[in-house]
Amino acid sequence: MTKVADRYLEVDPWAVIEHGFHTDRTRVSESIFSLGNEYMGVRGYFEEPYSGSSLRGSYLNGVYEETPIIHPQYFKGLSKRLCFMINNVDWLHTRLSVDGETLDLAVSQIKDFERRLDLRQGTLTRTFTWRTATEKELRLTFVRFVSMVNANLGCLRVTIQPLNFSGSVEVESGLDFSIPYELEGQSFWQSTRAESLNNGASILAQTRSSGQQVFSAFEIQCSQTFDSKPIEKEKFIGQQFTLSIKQGQALVFDKLAVNHAERQAGVSPDEVWNQGMTVFLNGTGLGFDQALEAQAGYWSDVWNRLDISIEGDPENQQGIRFCIFQLHQTYHGVNPGLNVGAKGLTGEFYYGWTFWDTETYCLPFYMFNNPAAARNLLGYRYHTLPQAIERAQQLDCRGARYPMGTIDGTESVGTWQHGDLEIHVSAAVSYGIWHYVNVTNDKEFLYGQGLEMLIEVSRFFASRGAWSPQNGDFGFWGVMGADEFHMMVHNNVYTNLMAKKTFEWTQATITEMKTSAPEALSAAIAKTKLQPDELTDWSHMAEKIRINYDPATRLFEQHDGYFDMPHVDVRQIPPTQFPIYKHWAYDSIFRVNPIKQPDVLLFLFFFSHEYPLDVKQANYEFYEARCSHESSLSPSIHSIMAAELGKHAEAYQYALHAARLDLDNYNRNTHEGLHTTSMAAAWLNMVYGFGGLRSDGEVLSLNPSLPKDWQAFTFRVLYRGSLLQVKVSHDSVSIQTVEGSAVSLDVFDQRYEVGADLVSVPLPDERRGGS
Amino acid sequence: MTKVADRYLEVDPWAVIEHGFHTDRTRVSESIFSLGNEYMGVRGYFEEPYSGSSLRGSYLNGVYEETPIIHPQYFKGLSKRLCFMINNVDWLHTRLSVDGETLDLAVSQIKDFERRLDLRQGTLTRTFTWRTATEKELRLTFVRFVSMVNANLGCLRVTIQPLNFSGSVEVESGLDFSIPYELEGQSFWQSTRAESLNNGASILAQTRSSGQQVFSAFEIQCSQTFDSKPIEKEKFIGQQFTLSIKQGQALVFDKLAVNHAERQAGVSPDEVWNQGMTVFLNGTGLGFDQALEAQAGYWSDVWNRLDISIEGDPENQQGIRFCIFQLHQTYHGVNPGLNVGAKGLTGEFYYGWTFWDTETYCLPFYMFNNPAAARNLLGYRYHTLPQAIERAQQLDCRGARYPMGTIDGTESVGTWQHGDLEIHVSAAVSYGIWHYVNVTNDKEFLYGQGLEMLIEVSRFFASRGAWSPQNGDFGFWGVMGADEFHMMVHNNVYTNLMAKKTFEWTQATITEMKTSAPEALSAAIAKTKLQPDELTDWSHMAEKIRINYDPATRLFEQHDGYFDMPHVDVRQIPPTQFPIYKHWAYDSIFRVNPIKQPDVLLFLFFFSHEYPLDVKQANYEFYEARCSHESSLSPSIHSIMAAELGKHAEAYQYALHAARLDLDNYNRNTHEGLHTTSMAAAWLNMVYGFGGLRSDGEVLSLNPSLPKDWQAFTFRVLYRGSLLQVKVSHDSVSIQTVEGSAVSLDVFDQRYEVGADLVSVPLPDERRGGS
Repeated sequence: MTKVADRYLEVDPWAVIEHGFHTDRTRVSESIFSLGNEYMGVRGYFEEPYSGSSLRGSYLNGVYEETPIIHPQYFKGLSKRLCFMINNVDWLHTRLSVDGETLDLAVSQIKDFERRLDLRQGTLTRTFTWRTATEKELRLTFVRFVSMVNANLGCLRVTIQPLNFSGSVEVESGLDFSIPYELEGQSFWQSTRAESLNNGASILAQTRSSGQQVFSAFEIQCSQTFDSKPIEKEKFIGQQFTLSIKQGQALVFDKLAVNHAERQAGVSPDEVWNQGMTVFLNGTGLGFDQALEAQAGYWSDVWNRLDISIEGDPENQQGIRFCIFQLHQTYHGVNPGLNVGAKGLTGEFYYGWTFWDTETYCLPFYMFNNPAAARNLLGYRYHTLPQAIERAQQLDCRGARYPMGTIDGTESVGTWQHGDLEIHVSAAVSYGIWHYVNVTNDKEFLYGQGLEMLIEVSRFFASRGAWSPQNGDFGFWGVMGADEFHMMVHNNVYTNLMAKKTFEWTQATITEMKTSAPEALSAAIAKTKLQPDELTDWSHMAEKIRINYDPATRLFEQHDGYFDMPHVDVRQIPPTQFPIYKHWAYDSIFRVNPIKQPDVLLFLFFFSHEYPLDVKQANYEFYEARCSHESSLSPSIHSIMAAELGKHAEAYQYALHAARLDLDNYNRNTHEGLHTTSMAAAWLNMVYGFGGLRSDGEVLSLNPSLPKDWQAFTFRVLYRGSLLQVKVSHDSVSIQTVEGSAVSLDVFDQRYEVGADLVSVPLPDERRGGS
Repeated sequence: MTKVADRYLEVDPWAVIEHGFHTDRTRVSESIFSLGNEYMGVRGYFEEPYSGSSLRGSYLNGVYEETPIIHPQYFKGLSKRLCFMINNVDWLHTRLSVDGETLDLAVSQIKDFERRLDLRQGTLTRTFTWRTATEKELRLTFVRFVSMVNANLGCLRVTIQPLNFSGSVEVESGLDFSIPYELEGQSFWQSTRAESLNNGASILAQTRSSGQQVFSAFEIQCSQTFDSKPIEKEKFIGQQFTLSIKQGQALVFDKLAVNHAERQAGVSPDEVWNQGMTVFLNGTGLGFDQALEAQAGYWSDVWNRLDISIEGDPENQQGIRFCIFQLHQTYHGVNPGLNVGAKGLTGEFYYGWTFWDTETYCLPFYMFNNPAAARNLLGYRYHTLPQAIERAQQLDCRGARYPMGTIDGTESVGTWQHGDLEIHVSAAVSYGIWHYVNVTNDKEFLYGQGLEMLIEVSRFFASRGAWSPQNGDFGFWGVMGADEFHMMVHNNVYTNLMAKKTFEWTQATITEMKTSAPEALSAAIAKTKLQPDELTDWSHMAEKIRINYDPATRLFEQHDGYFDMPHVDVRQIPPTQFPIYKHWAYDSIFRVNPIKQPDVLLFLFFFSHEYPLDVKQANYEFYEARCSHESSLSPSIHSIMAAELGKHAEAYQYALHAARLDLDNYNRNTHEGLHTTSMAAAWLNMVYGFGGLRSDGEVLSLNPSLPKDWQAFTFRVLYRGSLLQVKVSHDSVSIQTVEGSAVSLDVFDQRYEVGADLVSVPLPDERRGGS
């Protein structure tokens, strides 16, 4: 299938710019122009009411509602309770009227519209000229940001410049909990208290079922003094006021808003209110300008660690920076109770759920620039271990069965074929632990939370697996692997291999701890009630687990009988049949050989050092030809593998989709929200793909390549306290540490000690993209 | 698993009798004492109000409501609309009061309670003595039946005999549409018109969604003249009146009620009303006594054709007669728009749906005593062919995909794993056609409706199947076979074999018709737009279809990889874990080797002549040991196979469950309704099991055996116009035609011409159940 860009935004190295108002793409723009700071996120909807198509999505991370899951028929173990991130207070609400006409871009006459997301300081600016029915013209500018320094704070600056008249403008500014959650057509909020403040207001609201509370308050700051009139409606409080404006002169007013979420149910409203008011008084004191200055400083530091620069490819340059910007906005490890939703804080789809994307795609991004955030992501799994243990029991198993999709650690996925059969999710957690420790050497984590999780995941796999009466080997029957186009399969090789690894990591950690941390080991054994015969069983299972591999063809068989499945040539499926989930009868997806996403290729990438190139090549060529890429996470893995195999054109082609998936709306569903976790895949694509980084060996290794049209590219990774910079150009790979001490690493299979002095290694011919 | 009888009813050859009122089994009794006549059915609930546990289930066949099916996530092709047979007018409603005290068996003081279902005339009689708080005693008797001669008519006779006083009794009699449908807790009826009549009333009601209408009317007939007072409530109309009673004298009043269903939506209420009134005036004219006389005559004829008598086993004698009685009540082929629901007209569970049980279990019962009914069952499939063709298209297939569960021919099953994957249902229809024609030689049917269905089912299988890239053979991937404990399996051998047969039957019919019915053939080809290359494809597919068989072990492998599935010994599963569906986590059912019901054994039975005894024995011993019998249809097939293999003790043990499944409430769910289609399996068990009948050859064959404790048993089958009687006793099998001309058949593999003169064949030693 050929995916086609739908481009209307300007390509720029440090910004995303919309020239002219694209009324047919309002929701796509809203997603792309999203802002966030982990604590909260807001789509790029307009501050003022807009009667056209819009999703006024404002979200606080971890604030959700719940509803029973209805099944056509209930069976034991099926998930019963769906949690979904709800839309939250619209703290941007601003209404402007002149001569009784209220601004609404769906009906108002406007020109010179421009919208700009500044990636260097995290601001969204919108400017345009409004011509009223009374022929008055005003130049309007809205600048907003959510503070990375004070997570509760959101700031808005409105600049009004009357071009051909002097007079006045009526303003209404407020806090609105009444916006319906679109997927259900209702607001889940009940306002419990609301008060007017001096030039502002505050409001407390509570969800209907989950019992969470959100406090919100705002203040208008303006050089002009004005009288404001309180306005209160259902689930809404605000102020109305009139500002005098003079022809040619720009009048500025700022709205500083603070949101405070109490995620625990049962806290008294008074306590939340008082906490909220304290946060509010602390948060708004600095004012817009100082808050913006702090914001710019913050982002400058971030880009110093995170930037990837590409010379000669402005599209990918913009794409990868947009991805890094959105990823960092969504999560940077402040709170181990939070995680990364598939769409971050940018839309209602996927319900704000966290998937195993976190460990397999997002974790490396954080490991290499913000290890504390990576540890907090694993901490989230530790904090939700009790839920995973309970889930295993519901499914007649033991140990920890991590959920397919979750907000609070419980399984929210109601389709049992995913929620119950994708047991590999637990292995993603053990893989994350191992990978994180392999790169960071954080033994304290491993010996504590890490080991406890490894034991419980091993215990789960031991209880879920079974023995073949035919061959006497161990395996997993009735699963869905990483590839979701095959269901109720037996011995999915990805699942089996990940379970084998889990058993081995657990054993190795215990062996290591016997000498290095015997007390921590005793504590973990006591806590998990680990029995000696469990360890014996796990060794036996790891040894006897079925891994379908044919030495003659060097192919892994994705699951028992996969090679026997009827063949459909994915390249012959017409583009009109994508997405396949919507165009094919459901059951017909599962009985032919196209795959949705990499499965065998995924572990060949994860454990790159263990497989020779000819094995990777054989499997890449076989499975790439059968992959539909119905998952947005799919192309990056293929690009990474293609880069390693010297298939430069393919590597580049796959990468283009990854970095610009949302900017060019390749999947035609960006209006639903950004593909946030796919952005991590895009980062992997640059660093593991063209950078050729591998982090599964004893030291980091690099095997870079340079796409044909690029002059050079540069990226940085934080590795055991040292900030490494890698520049790949036409003739060489140049590496140095820009912070910290020297580190050992392999470049093109050669070991180097890299410090502050530039190490330059020639780029072999075959690592340059051919003509 | 050992199933245990829960017996409280008296064993009697021609009746089911309850002595004493079993308040803890009211719902079980209601199911067992159900009456029906194909057009309508009514559970054995009390005429008067009962404040204890009760399901006042009254049903009209084919009258249903519909509701959308809600899925946790909707995927293309999933069934969206659930049809369910709703409870209908309570036409028995009768309230009796003395001295202001209203009879209610949950609180009233009663004694000498007896209830009796008379299988010879289809009446239910209840009698008991009521002692009021004022110490008045009345002997009450209620006799009811639904007329087999006039399908609209239901009759009730109430006899009141005051034992120790003279005085009066207050009576309320009516028609009640307000009884809630229990599974949803609401009545789906809206009353659109109601009128009082002379000593009676009539009412018209309409369903909420399906737009069907039901007219009901009644008249009280009594030797005593009385004044009645109309009473009208929501969804209810009736009459109240007072009757004088004299000590020692029995006073009788009869209630004659008529129900008339308009199943088509959109008919004007006036038209339905007028039709209903006509039916009412015709129906009530005869009066109770004459209607009862006709009823008894009808049943006498039926038993002449249908009875199975067993000497020396009163329990199985009662059991099999009860099954025959209930089956014939539920369906006897008056209307090709109707079919047999899994629970007949006796409860809400299974929603009144028809399953493939009809063709595989019920059809032979009708073929051998009422061929017109058998033809009408197939006619139902023909009339719903358009729905089956549409369903195939929804699933991206062609031809006819018959529904898993249905009332109106559309798929009502919302669990896609059954509704979408059990493609063998279409083959049950083609099997039914072939089997019916093989026994009846009804070529007219075969050459018309039959061929058209065969073509469309073949077309479906051709479009649903695929070719293995590994072996180049044809098959079906991603199915659920007859065994519902394995899902999304490949090349289920039952499904593959049934499809192969379908292709072959279609080819053979077309070949035959080229000479015998070329015009009908041309018509069918034109109507189905059959292309010559389709026939070529079907031949090729039939030839190349995968049938997993190992000549070394003589075992068929139930599906690809079945022998490799982890083993769980079904005999070690504790009884507390049954039913497995409720006690095991859903997904855990599908990844071990226990099966729910026969799969391989089913086709070894269907096509008995094609498989040698050693193959049957190997597969029986292998699969019987792995069968959980979670389906109530399962034991009979095992009994039949065991009888053939000379495993007499097993054959008897399995048969005991089959014939008395409901009378002894083996599955502890008879309160939900009777296992109507399992009753057909019980009949098969007698005739095909101990009778050893096989109907898949050129002529009928018999291979009888006699259970150890039986002196003899006798059954009759109608075969090509001749009524054959077979008596199996200790030393011989005696066969004769009691009506019609002589027929050829095989007894113990020897051909006989059997006419009115008794043919007696010795019963070999090994066909007698050992000690």
